[in-house]
Order: sequence, then structure tokens, then C-alpha cells
Amino acid sequence: MKRFVDWYVSDRLVMAVIVLNATALVLHEMAARGTPLRTLWYWIDYACVVYFLVEAVLKIRRDGWSDYWSSSWNKFDFLVVIISLPALLGPFFHVEQFAFVLILRLGRLFRLFRLLRFIPNLDHLVLGVRRALRASIGVFLALFLINLILAVMATLLFRDLDPEHFGNPVVSGYSIFQVFTVEGWNEIAEGLEERAVEENPAGAKLLVSGTRVFFVVAVLIGGILGLSLANAVFVDEMMMDNTETLERKIDAMTEELRRLRSDLGS
Amino acid sequence: MKRFVDWYVSDRLVMAVIVLNATALVLHEMAARGTPLRTLWYWIDYACVVYFLVEAVLKIRRDGWSDYWSSSWNKFDFLVVIISLPALLGPFFHVEQFAFVLILRLGRLFRLFRLLRFIPNLDHLVLGVRRALRASIGVFLALFLINLILAVMATLLFRDLDPEHFGNPVVSGYSIFQVFTVEGWNEIAEGLEERAVEENPAGAKLLVSGTRVFFVVAVLIGGILGLSLANAVFVDEMMMDNTETLERKIDAMTEELRRLRSDLGS
Amino acid sequence: MKRFVDWYVSDRLVMAVIVLNATALVLHEMAARGTPLRTLWYWIDYACVVYFLVEAVLKIRRDGWSDYWSSSWNKFDFLVVIISLPALLGPFFHVEQFAFVLILRLGRLFRLFRLLRFIPNLDHLVLGVRRALRASIGVFLALFLINLILAVMATLLFRDLDPEHFGNPVVSGYSIFQVFTVEGWNEIAEGLEERAVEENPAGAKLLVSGTRVFFVVAVLIGGILGLSLANAVFVDEMMMDNTETLERKIDAMTEELRRLRSDLGS
Amino acid sequence: MKRFVDWYVSDRLVMAVIVLNATALVLHEMAARGTPLRTLWYWIDYACVVYFLVEAVLKIRRDGWSDYWSSSWNKFDFLVVIISLPALLGPFFHVEQFAFVLILRLGRLFRLFRLLRFIPNLDHLVLGVRRALRASIGVFLALFLINLILAVMATLLFRDLDPEHFGNPVVSGYSIFQVFTVEGWNEIAEGLEERAVEENPAGAKLLVSGTRVFFVVAVLIGGILGLSLANAVFVDEMMMDNTETLERKIDAMTEELRRLRSDLGS
Repeated sequence: MKRFVDWYVSDRLVMAVIVLNATALVLHEMAARGTPLRTLWYWIDYACVVYFLVEAVLKIRRDGWSDYWSSSWNKFDFLVVIISLPALLGPFFHVEQFAFVLILRLGRLFRLFRLLRFIPNLDHLVLGVRRALRASIGVFLALFLINLILAVMATLLFRDLDPEHFGNPVVSGYSIFQVFTVEGWNEIAEGLEERAVEENPAGAKLLVSGTRVFFVVAVLIGGILGLSLANAVFVDEMMMDNTETLERKIDAMTEELRRLRSDLGS
Repeated sequence: MKRFVDWYVSDRLVMAVIVLNATALVLHEMAARGTPLRTLWYWIDYACVVYFLVEAVLKIRRDGWSDYWSSSWNKFDFLVVIISLPALLGPFFHVEQFAFVLILRLGRLFRLFRLLRFIPNLDHLVLGVRRALRASIGVFLALFLINLILAVMATLLFRDLDPEHFGNPVVSGYSIFQVFTVEGWNEIAEGLEERAVEENPAGAKLLVSGTRVFFVVAVLIGGILGLSLANAVFVDEMMMDNTETLERKIDAMTEELRRLRSDLGS
Repeated sequence: MKRFVDWYVSDRLVMAVIVLNATALVLHEMAARGTPLRTLWYWIDYACVVYFLVEAVLKIRRDGWSDYWSSSWNKFDFLVVIISLPALLGPFFHVEQFAFVLILRLGRLFRLFRLLRFIPNLDHLVLGVRRALRASIGVFLALFLINLILAVMATLLFRDLDPEHFGNPVVSGYSIFQVFTVEGWNEIAEGLEERAVEENPAGAKLLVSGTRVFFVVAVLIGGILGLSLANAVFVDEMMMDNTETLERKIDAMTEELRRLRSDLGS
Repeated sequence: MKRFVDWYVSDRLVMAVIVLNATALVLHEMAARGTPLRTLWYWIDYACVVYFLVEAVLKIRRDGWSDYWSSSWNKFDFLVVIISLPALLGPFFHVEQFAFVLILRLGRLFRLFRLLRFIPNLDHLVLGVRRALRASIGVFLALFLINLILAVMATLLFRDLDPEHFGNPVVSGYSIFQVFTVEGWNEIAEGLEERAVEENPAGAKLLVSGTRVFFVVAVLIGGILGLSLANAVFVDEMMMDNTETLERKIDAMTEELRRLRSDLGS
């Protein structure tokens, strides 16, 4: 019995079922509605959910609850099982309630997230991303606030000309974000310019120039400067490791030297 | 009394009012004109302005003018209060003069800028940006001059074909800037090519080829080379810190070693 | 005879024929069908194939098979010759079979690949790319999985609104990849928003907001964070060399110092 | 007299005239044809050309030809003067010959290039760019060759579907370059897909999938991998300086240590 349990919850089998489940989830969406293939993939997904449920139960029984719960991977797996439970009722009730459907879909997505386990050195990567994000939090916060300020400015300036892009601060914030990604910034500017010329052909020249200055500044701050800075902070943080190794080595050597000197002095 | 002043000008309360004010400013713009909600947010903003005015007065009285003025944050806050003063007159006069409205709006934007205080280690970030900008000033100046030269070149070449994009050097400069951001560079080139074919179907082939070479070179110089260089200079400047730490440590060790040698020699 | 063979398989002549062959292949495609120029370039390509065949035979006879096969460049050249052999039959049979034409074209492309030999320090570059790719495999795998998860999510959310972009997980994956390259992400979002408004003008507001949040998150994760991370890992890996040199030097010095200390102690 | 010459060829005055000349050249193009303003700027440009001519003559007389010619800045200035000479004849002949007009325009552009002198530490920047380019020549050559290979491949695959973008290898090369800049890559792919569906609705599915794979690979190689690699090489080259300083310091210290050891040994 114990051997069966060990085999059942072995990493290898779990990994295989995760891949099978992901395949089933994707191919289930690929198949046209009402085809037998779709039904097949549905039942394979169903079997995987049952497998995951049994896996969690067996693991908890084997390791005890506190041991099981100490691993953050297990916590995540348990959450996936809980969210997937309603899916087990799927075949028996034909409810088409929105909330129920939503939960089913959420469960499917969470089961896909288990694929993240395949990333080698995920902990290392997550640590790196977290450290880089913490180091660049200032840059991102600054960009967010500058986005907010530019959005309010754009709302005050362009609200009447182009309500679709700058009708209120939230909509403006989305448009400014788009400008920050450098994608289609010129089209927004062109749209504004055209409407400015339409509305007031005489006084449009100043408005067009002002608009262009506004957008050039926004692109330079958000798209060029902001991105470069965030990038530089990332690289800086990644390289910190190497330099720290060097520093430690040099410190060790200085210590050695000092000891040598005190040896000689005595 | 002193306790009340300290509480009133405490960082915590000031921060809270800054957030409240920013929220009021954004939601004021979100609300439709003439709704009571808009009026509510208007008066909350008004109260914040009064709060900031009293805060500045209390701080100046407590610390004395020269102490107050020595902090650049205080200077900025004082400027915001001065610019916001006309807003206090808002409810009593219903002036719709352009200049007055402009000042009111400027005041609102400046009050938003106070949010920048929330960026952790802002001084550090500003210092980093300033250093990076100073290091890359050559790159940016070079890009600006190359933009200017390409703009005059494009004006001479394409003015008659596409006056909208290349009618005069300033308009061309804007178009070349767009090419430097790599956004929509191909659309500008395509527009030129189409008109070249329209105007002179026989001789268009050479012109189309020349146009393409011009744009490929502009994209390579501005979008690829320029950006990469600026990026590299940024990273270089950010990392300088680490290397300088290393250099200082190594220098210290070399000094130690030299002293050891002279100790032994004597 | 030996001198002739050495001249025939000398790097210089081989390089010249590679360039001639690439030129012939490109200009053959440039020339209009049925012109004598096209025929000329065809026969020059033909002559190059014959040259490459003879080169391989001579080299194998000179060096012996095992020596010849030990170089990976030779392996590649041999493969090119094998794939090019059917081209020698071209003038005698006028087969228009799809499979045969495909093989001929494949041969032409592979002959172009021989140009890669001109890259100075190709081994070094390939090594660098391979090391950088190995270091960033985690980032890319994570991006691939996040792409997959976002694609399934988008399929569940937007399938009915925009089947062209989100009809099934594979199509969605392509659209999400496009969003990750930041190219045209806003147009996909706009298309979704327009259809949402068309279908259900009353409830569209929430859907539009949700869509925007989805796309902003996708752009931030894939286009900004993912690219920056991959970039940082690349730079980190490239710089490893330098730091490793430093580390080795410092290690050597520490060793020296330790030896000095033991010398003095004894 | 000597004092006048020194004043005339002083850096300050030369700089001022360069700026004046650039301003004149830009504003001359800004002014509408036939206006007196345009004439004014024309004559100011004319005066600047005269000034540059006299400057070159005076400098050569003062320093002697070999001294003058030893500075590369002087060489460039001399070239500008030579190219600008025809402009001095402008007012006397009203030739509208194409070749003459071209030379006049070239002269104007070259006079603008003198602005590059204003970049602080230009030599340093040029050196950095040259070193970075030399280091990344392999990456760029590889990208160029991959572009060529993909272009020939695209010509063979898509020539009949979309002759405008892939009609011959040169046109394809331009389209692939566009894909490498990530700008509008999806639009080219979409165009191909639409035509594939139009021409052969039954068999289009495979072609559409193949097209998408082709473009995704091209974007990944050129836009993501290529750019990141070039970027990493740039940063690497910029940082080399710092590491070299460190290496030199460590080498010096090791030398010191070795000397100390030999002192003690003797």
C-alpha cells in the first residue's frame, strides 16, 4: 500500500498528469462544441481533477497536515483542488448559472498554473524578479504618478477635443499608458490634431504645436527614459550578486592580510 | 497649542491630505458637470487648499523663514500654495477668463505633483536620473543634432511629395522623432512611396529605393543604435557605484600591503 | 595534382564561390521569369553546386573520411551537397512535382546558410548565444507558460466577442504573443471594446474596463517585465566573463598571500 | 593684424557663426518661397559661407598647410568650404540644373554637420560607438545574413501571394527588416493570411499556420534575440573600462605582494 501511495504522489506521475491535464484543457477548447472529441477531453480533464483530489488526500494522510501545509507548493495545489471541486459536480447538474460557470473556468485556469512547476529554478527566478521589482519600485511608482499627472493634464487640455481618449482621468490614464508603451502614440496625436484643425482652423497651429510637444515629452519620459531606467535598475540588481561575491572575496583577503600583519607585529 | 501645530504639520496628516486632495482632483474630473458629486469634490479640494495654506503659515511661524526655506520640499510646497491661492477666490467670482482658468488648472496639477513625495528614496532616484542624464547628455545631444540634420535633409528631399510630414524643418523633425521611436516609421515611408509612384510612375523606382535606404538608416541610427547607446550609458552609470566600492576596497588593501612592506623594511 | 587540390579546397576560393553562389541565388530571384539573365544566373548556381560537390569529394579523399567528418563545418557542407544533388538533375527532367521543387528550394536556402561562415568569431558568438539562452531559459519558459495561461483565459473571456483573434487557444496564443511584442496591442483591445459596445451597449462599461485591465497586465508582464528580465539575464551572462577573470585573479592573490603567511609561520 | 586673425578664427566666434548658420539654414526652409524673410536668411547663410572661406584661408596662412591639415576637424571644415564654394556663385547665375542644385543642398547639409562640434567629449563618444560597433559587428553581420536568408525564403514562399512585400529578395529584405524592428509585423502577416484565404479557402489553414510560425520566428530572432544581444554586447563593452581598471589595480597589488614575498625570501 505504501509503495502504491509513493508511486501515486511521485513527482514524475504528478508532472505527467499536469501535462495531460493542460493538454486536455487546451484541446477541449480547440474542439468544436458538441463533438465527441470535446466530450473525450472533458472526461480526461475530469479524471485529472479526481487524480489531483486523491493525490492531495493521500499526501495529507502520509505527511500529516502540518508537514503538508509547510510547503508553499502544497498550499497552491490544495487551493487548486478546492477550486476544482465544483467541477466534479459538473456532469450531474446542468446549471448554467453565471457564478457557477465562472468558478469552473477559474478552476481550469488554476489547473494550468500548475504548469509553472516545470520552470527550472523557479524559486531563483521568483526571487530575482521580486528583488528586481523591489529595487525598481521607485521607478515604477514614479512612472505611475507621472502617468496620473499627465492624465489629469491631458484631461484638462484635450477633454473636449477627443472625449474617447481623454474624456476623464481614468480613460486618459489608459491613453497615456499606451503612449508610454510607444505603441500608436502618433495616431492619438494625429487624431487630436485633425479635430483641432476641424474645430478651429485659424487658431489650430498653436494647439497642434502644443499637442506635439506634450506627446514628445510623454514618449521621452515614459517610453525612453522610464523603460531605460527600469532596465538599468534590473541589470544592476542582477549583477549585484557577482559584485557581492567579489566584495566578499576581497574582504576575506583584507582580513587575511590584517591577520598576517598582526602575526608579524607580535 | 504647540502640540496642535506639531500634529497639524506632521508628515502623516500632510500625506493623508495630499492623497485626499489627489483623489478629490481626479474624482472631480470623473463626475459629470453639474452633478452634486462634482460640487462635493470641489469643496473637498477647496478644504485641502485651505489646509495647505494654514500648514505653510504654521510651519513658517514655527521654524522661522530661513529654516523653512532651506528645505527644497518646503520651497516646492510654498510654490504650490502660492499658485493655489487664486483657487480660494473661485467661489466668490464667476470669472470665466482664460488666464484665470489656466492658473486654477495649473494649481490643481501642482497639487498633484505633491504625490511625488510618496516615492521611496526619491532623492536617490533623482540623483541617479540626473547622473545618468549627465552621462548620456552627449548621446542625446548627438541624437538631437542628427535628428536636425536628417530633418533638413528630409525637408529638401520630400517637401514636395509629402508636405504634411516634411513641409518644413520643424514638421520634419517631428516626423524623424517618430521614426526614431520606431513607431509607424514604415507608414511614413509607404506614404512617400505611394505618392512618388503617383506623380512619376516611370522614375519612381529610384526614388522608392532611395526613400527606403533613408528610412532604414534613420531607424538604425535613432531607434536601434541611439537607444542601445543611451541604455548602455545608463546601465554603466548605475553600476559605477558597485565598481567604485570595489575599487575603494582594493585601494584600501593595497595601502595596507604597502604599510606592511614598509613595516618589514624598517 | 596535390597543389591543384590544395588550391581548389583553399578557404579563399571556397569563400569566393560561396559569395558568387549567394549572389547568383539572389539575382536569379531578382530577374524576371524567362529572361536570359535568369538563365545565366541559373547556370552559375549550377556551376557552384558542381564546384561544392567536387570540393567535398576532394577533401574527403585528401583527409580521409574520419578526419573530414570530425569538423562540424565539414558536416554542414556535406549536408548542403547532399541536399543540392537533386538540383544537378534539374536541367534534364522538367518535373514540376511539389516535393521535388521543395527540395530544390531547400537546397538553395542551405547554400545561402554557408554565408554564416563569414561571421568573425562565429564560434564565440554561438557560444555566447547558447550560454545566454541557457541562462534565460527559465524566463522564456515562464513567458511561454504565462502566454499559454493568458491565451486560455482570453479564449474563455473573448471567444464569442472576437473569434478571429481569440477563437481557440492556439489563435489566442498568437494574439497574446503579438501583445507581448507590444505591437498593435491597443488595436486588438479597441476591436474587443467596439464589439462589446455593439452587442450590449448597457453592460459594456464593465467589460471595457475589464478588457483594458487584462491588456495592460499582459503588456506589463510580457512586453515590459519579460523583455527587461531576459535582457538583464543576457547582460549578466555576457559580463560573467569579466567578473570571473577578476575572481580568478583575486583567488590567485589570496593563495599567494596564504602561501606567504605559511612561509613566515614556518 | 595678428590679433584680428586670432579673434577671427577663435573658437568662440566660429561656434557663434556655426549656430547662426544653422539657424539661417533652418529658418530659410521655414519661410515661404518668395517672401523677404527667406531672402534675408539666404543672405545670412551667404555671409556665413564667406566667413567660413576666410576663416579657412586665414588659418592656413597662420598655421601653415601641414599643421592645418593634421587636425581632422580642420580637414572636415575644409571639405565643407570646398563643397560650399558653388553656393557663392548662386546669386550671379540662375542655373536650375539638377546637379548644381544638388551640390548646393549638399553644401547646406554639410554646414549643419559642423554643429556636431558642440557635442561635449565627441571624441570619447565616437570612440565608444566605434568600439561597441566593432564588438557587435558579429551580431549585426549575423542579423544581416539571417535577414538575407529569411528574405530569400520569404520570396520563395510568399512571392505569388504578396508581390508588393515579397516580390523579389531586395523587397523581401526590406519587409524582413521591418519585421526585425517589430513595427507592423502583424500587419504584413495579416495581409498574407487574407490573400491566402481569398485564393484558396480550402487549403488556407495550413498556409496561415505556416505563415504565423514564420513571422513569430522572425520576430523572436530579429526583434527580441538580436536586439537583446546587440544591447548586451554594447553594455559589456561600455563596462569593460571599469573592469579593466579593477584588473589593473589587482594586478598591481599582486605584483606588490610578490615583491614583498621575494623581499622576505632574500
